[in-house]
Amino acid sequence: MQTQDINLEKMNAVVKSKRKTGAEITKVSPPKIKDSEVLIEVEAASICGTDVHIWDWNEWAQERMKRIPVIFGHEVAGRVVEIGKNVTGVHVGDKISAETHIVDNMCYQCKTDRKHVCKNMEILGVDRDGVFAEQFALPEENAWKNDPHLDPSIASIQEPLGNAVQTVLPKEHVEDVAGKNVAVLGTGPIGLMAIAVLRELGAAKIFATAGGLNKVRMDLAKRMGADMVLSAREEGERLVKTIVDATDGNGVDVALEMSGDPNAVRQAFEMLTPGGRVSLLGILDKPMELDLNTAMIFKSATVFGITGRRMFETWYQVRGLLAKPGFKEKVSAVITHRIPIRDISKGVDLIKSKQAAKIVLEPKW
Amino acid sequence: MQTQDINLEKMNAVVKSKRKTGAEITKVSPPKIKDSEVLIEVEAASICGTDVHIWDWNEWAQERMKRIPVIFGHEVAGRVVEIGKNVTGVHVGDKISAETHIVDNMCYQCKTDRKHVCKNMEILGVDRDGVFAEQFALPEENAWKNDPHLDPSIASIQEPLGNAVQTVLPKEHVEDVAGKNVAVLGTGPIGLMAIAVLRELGAAKIFATAGGLNKVRMDLAKRMGADMVLSAREEGERLVKTIVDATDGNGVDVALEMSGDPNAVRQAFEMLTPGGRVSLLGILDKPMELDLNTAMIFKSATVFGITGRRMFETWYQVRGLLAKPGFKEKVSAVITHRIPIRDISKGVDLIKSKQAAKIVLEPKW
Amino acid sequence: MQTQDINLEKMNAVVKSKRKTGAEITKVSPPKIKDSEVLIEVEAASICGTDVHIWDWNEWAQERMKRIPVIFGHEVAGRVVEIGKNVTGVHVGDKISAETHIVDNMCYQCKTDRKHVCKNMEILGVDRDGVFAEQFALPEENAWKNDPHLDPSIASIQEPLGNAVQTVLPKEHVEDVAGKNVAVLGTGPIGLMAIAVLRELGAAKIFATAGGLNKVRMDLAKRMGADMVLSAREEGERLVKTIVDATDGNGVDVALEMSGDPNAVRQAFEMLTPGGRVSLLGILDKPMELDLNTAMIFKSATVFGITGRRMFETWYQVRGLLAKPGFKEKVSAVITHRIPIRDISKGVDLIKSKQAAKIVLEPKW
Amino acid sequence: MQTQDINLEKMNAVVKSKRKTGAEITKVSPPKIKDSEVLIEVEAASICGTDVHIWDWNEWAQERMKRIPVIFGHEVAGRVVEIGKNVTGVHVGDKISAETHIVDNMCYQCKTDRKHVCKNMEILGVDRDGVFAEQFALPEENAWKNDPHLDPSIASIQEPLGNAVQTVLPKEHVEDVAGKNVAVLGTGPIGLMAIAVLRELGAAKIFATAGGLNKVRMDLAKRMGADMVLSAREEGERLVKTIVDATDGNGVDVALEMSGDPNAVRQAFEMLTPGGRVSLLGILDKPMELDLNTAMIFKSATVFGITGRRMFETWYQVRGLLAKPGFKEKVSAVITHRIPIRDISKGVDLIKSKQAAKIVLEPKW
Repeated sequence: MQTQDINLEKMNAVVKSKRKTGAEITKVSPPKIKDSEVLIEVEAASICGTDVHIWDWNEWAQERMKRIPVIFGHEVAGRVVEIGKNVTGVHVGDKISAETHIVDNMCYQCKTDRKHVCKNMEILGVDRDGVFAEQFALPEENAWKNDPHLDPSIASIQEPLGNAVQTVLPKEHVEDVAGKNVAVLGTGPIGLMAIAVLRELGAAKIFATAGGLNKVRMDLAKRMGADMVLSAREEGERLVKTIVDATDGNGVDVALEMSGDPNAVRQAFEMLTPGGRVSLLGILDKPMELDLNTAMIFKSATVFGITGRRMFETWYQVRGLLAKPGFKEKVSAVITHRIPIRDISKGVDLIKSKQAAKIVLEPKW
Repeated sequence: MQTQDINLEKMNAVVKSKRKTGAEITKVSPPKIKDSEVLIEVEAASICGTDVHIWDWNEWAQERMKRIPVIFGHEVAGRVVEIGKNVTGVHVGDKISAETHIVDNMCYQCKTDRKHVCKNMEILGVDRDGVFAEQFALPEENAWKNDPHLDPSIASIQEPLGNAVQTVLPKEHVEDVAGKNVAVLGTGPIGLMAIAVLRELGAAKIFATAGGLNKVRMDLAKRMGADMVLSAREEGERLVKTIVDATDGNGVDVALEMSGDPNAVRQAFEMLTPGGRVSLLGILDKPMELDLNTAMIFKSATVFGITGRRMFETWYQVRGLLAKPGFKEKVSAVITHRIPIRDISKGVDLIKSKQAAKIVLEPKW
Repeated sequence: MQTQDINLEKMNAVVKSKRKTGAEITKVSPPKIKDSEVLIEVEAASICGTDVHIWDWNEWAQERMKRIPVIFGHEVAGRVVEIGKNVTGVHVGDKISAETHIVDNMCYQCKTDRKHVCKNMEILGVDRDGVFAEQFALPEENAWKNDPHLDPSIASIQEPLGNAVQTVLPKEHVEDVAGKNVAVLGTGPIGLMAIAVLRELGAAKIFATAGGLNKVRMDLAKRMGADMVLSAREEGERLVKTIVDATDGNGVDVALEMSGDPNAVRQAFEMLTPGGRVSLLGILDKPMELDLNTAMIFKSATVFGITGRRMFETWYQVRGLLAKPGFKEKVSAVITHRIPIRDISKGVDLIKSKQAAKIVLEPKW
Repeated sequence: MQTQDINLEKMNAVVKSKRKTGAEITKVSPPKIKDSEVLIEVEAASICGTDVHIWDWNEWAQERMKRIPVIFGHEVAGRVVEIGKNVTGVHVGDKISAETHIVDNMCYQCKTDRKHVCKNMEILGVDRDGVFAEQFALPEENAWKNDPHLDPSIASIQEPLGNAVQTVLPKEHVEDVAGKNVAVLGTGPIGLMAIAVLRELGAAKIFATAGGLNKVRMDLAKRMGADMVLSAREEGERLVKTIVDATDGNGVDVALEMSGDPNAVRQAFEMLTPGGRVSLLGILDKPMELDLNTAMIFKSATVFGITGRRMFETWYQVRGLLAKPGFKEKVSAVITHRIPIRDISKGVDLIKSKQAAKIVLEPKW
């Protein structure tokens, strides 16, 4: 269900209404749900890097965003206020978060347990109206029921936490962090959460590398459980050697590239033990040069491209992790700011300045 | 290398010298090593259930023990005091523990990454002289080098800790405890260590079941990290329902059978979610009746028989876990007693009375 | 959609109308489809062992069949003649076969890629009207589109062929027949198809064992590609040894139990190489006694309970196999009889006498 | 054991004696074996691309070859003529082939089932004297016992056939060719063998792409079982689209890059279905530019770098495949020439002209 008439002034929403930088907070008609959808009142939302791209109207956004005007935002926690007539598993009053990938359930990928790369995927807040609003519509099957006692701001960041789990464990039958040495390259919100997840899943030594010298994020990396936090800028040429030396000369078993920096990509492979694994999550600005012989072939490396999260194994895994003593508290430190949604432009600025990690928006218009 | 002449009085050892209950502490000539072996001075040893069987001379021991007299015992930590002339990777002074399975490296199993079920396996302290002595001989490839600062009593229990890891993660590419609900049936030493390992590897809820009402072990199960500890005797018919109810009615994702009790085997399958996994480690007294239709087939269950531990992945995993803050301290609580080896008969009694979990023997003769 | 009024005489159907042996061919009103369903005209159906149980009204049927009267049968090929208003991916005129497991898409199993063990599963021809009729209704998502040129009798047996693939390859990330020695215990239709699949997937030596001395089926086993076909009755005690000897003394890498005979279950484990894998598909009459120590634990065996087939990976795999030169022709030999559906009682008799393997029913009323 | 004195004229050998193009056939003293080695009389050898690099003294060879003079060559079949005193599993008269990677069994990689990337690996015919001689020495554990009736020229190419199996099935628990569409980019000897292996392991459609228009190799690709053989030069821009169209628009499930051509690397990712897998075996001349976003990340691709072959699973798999009816005959067509070893320089020229696929050298001096 999408907003019928964007001029009807009934509900507050952050609308990307023009194909240029910025967005406007305005009144729109609330969504009307389809028979298989539910209507959700937003209790908390959070800002993803994608939202910043949409705000900034960068190259990616210009090419990717087909539907303007659109309400954006997709990380969310809310309460069901209405259900469609075919909805049977979700009830009014349920607390939910949104799996943001809306899939067709009929394509080759969906029929073979790879819904997260559905051929006809719609993304909430990109291809259809999203969650930076008072209410939004969601297909029943995308509604993930939360424990009613879960803090909405934590509930909202379950979606990127699922990305972190996906990066750590890209397939169900690939176990490779128990007692293993792991590097996380990049200390953005998902990188930080990945460190927390790794600590929880039995990694031995965890190395975090930051591109620059951002103290806020490097401190958070430490707090999430990294044993060693290094600045690539400060270490320079020594970076890889420092990490390899700290693993008895073997190199790391697993490297998670979460920065999108081509130097970090190269370092990920350089610090890898032969036969080890790299997950690539960080999006790069452009094609990069890579020596496939030494990076992958002679090293017998396994590489996983990471996008989205397995539906819905990762949600169960996130639920299980949040139920563990202490994890919820630890990971909540990634939320550096909680601000009213009317101040979203300040939130975007904070993220761009890297003074913030994750920012939660409260429904205060 | 085996003891040349058991009558030469040079070294103290616990010798199974007769095919009946008990053992004797006596002086024997120290082992002479082969070219590819190392000689190790024992700094700590620990008692395994197998040692109790050998002591008691039960049915299993009567059938399995071909070589009497023999020095038994296999869980150990020690210091290398001599190396054979072909040894290159181990040096005098190295601190080591023993991988207790001595394999032929040539059979089908060894050539296909399943050394732990080598067709021509010799077991330390069973098929050749073991570690309840002042010194013992070990092939170089079975010598696992410890961090020199690791407490010998912790170093000694790495071997059964490896069994616990093997039960939790039976193959390298089977990931299934992250965020999952897991039951451990049986609270012997390996069961207790499995709980600690599960907690460390990100399991969501952990259920422990004890056959009887042994307070020492049930308290330890709690301390290792179980969320719920149940007595099968006390719960009776309710046991399975209690656990299924505590998992939103789904049943556990993984059940680890570590008791050898046929009722526990049945319960493990009953409490399993369809498509879930059972690991069977506990040895049964005799064949049992099982409804394969409901236990395995209709449930699409995966079952792993567990014996030994993958060589040497599990050792690296144990090393990684011991390096994590707090784990070493936690798991050391499984060591309920530290006694001089001359009092081994008291140790055996303590284990049989179930007043002890793991007992470490100090080299005091 | 289910038959509205079983007394309306409009369409021919084989109806299980009484809770006793047999069934009647009678006229019923044709099904009315729901918005998300399609209506299919039957072009071929085939008889499954389950249909024989329903016909015979054996213990399983008495307990399992909740809904009488019901049209039974589920293996089918047909042509879409009507689509519901929400159907978008299937069109009138499409040739289809039916995935016979109708799932809720909302339970834990469905949300974690294990739809074949959905908690609220309905089975076509068991829990709702099936395919032994002129027409039947099917949810769009259960309609598997066939190549329009595929012979309907082959199209119909794709469903049990999927079971054979599931038995051979129980999970996506378990590869273990390439160049491996495999035994198939049981020579019923799915066992025979498993032999053909194994041959196609690169198994080295394939051993087939039949319980008795049924010449028709033993010849078919040979024709499907078994290198050695043995009668358990004739071989007696020698059976396991014969197979182990034929594998350089190693035993088979994989044993597929497809008979439901407790002796065959025991033999499957006895002939298994340590570290090998057993798939259990054959349903047993009752609980059986098993020595778990030697069968599974000391052998480090992996055991998979097999039910249904992964949705829809196995369908793609079956499609891929049928596209290979010669496979379709070979597997079609499992269809020993093609008879008019009005003679279904003769078909049931033929299967019970074991003179037939798979019987295809033509829509001749 | 290495040749003691290269001037002693006792045995014929092809010796790389100078750090420049070419090699000389000369008399050297036969190897003396160590206690754990066996001496083998060569019955057939074959030429690998690596041998051509050594002959040509290209950049790779100049950097990699530390030990000159050296006898090169590593693909071989022979007969054991002498065994060292510690050898127990191999006997004089045994027919063997050589696993060419001689590993230390002690490093992290060897201890964790990744011997093929051993940190201290020696390669036969590169780091120690090889097989282009009348006799060569080999550690017992590298001697793979052949069926005595196996044709030596087939026995010799088992080693590269193992590379082909490794490329198709990079890990034991990764099943992904059964019923799947696969592309092989590159039609050199290992690419051709990979096609034959894929056909044998149940791939659905197999696409082969050749860089140029080499008729000999394109015909062989067809003969090995490719359904469609395309010339990248002829197809140009259409190449990827042609293959995607032939897979219902899905793209291939698996792409095997076996050419080392950067355009083929890019095409492999372009023709891949989201969530699919790429194996990279072909060595590239230099670093290449790659768009990681579209190639790997957004596509959720899995990438395996391929080097060597799992020891010794791939050897068992090759044995199993060679035992299948017809496979041996089919794959032997890859051997386009059988020439006396004294004509090795002609063989090198034939390979460089791409008029040959695999060339077997007969022991005629």
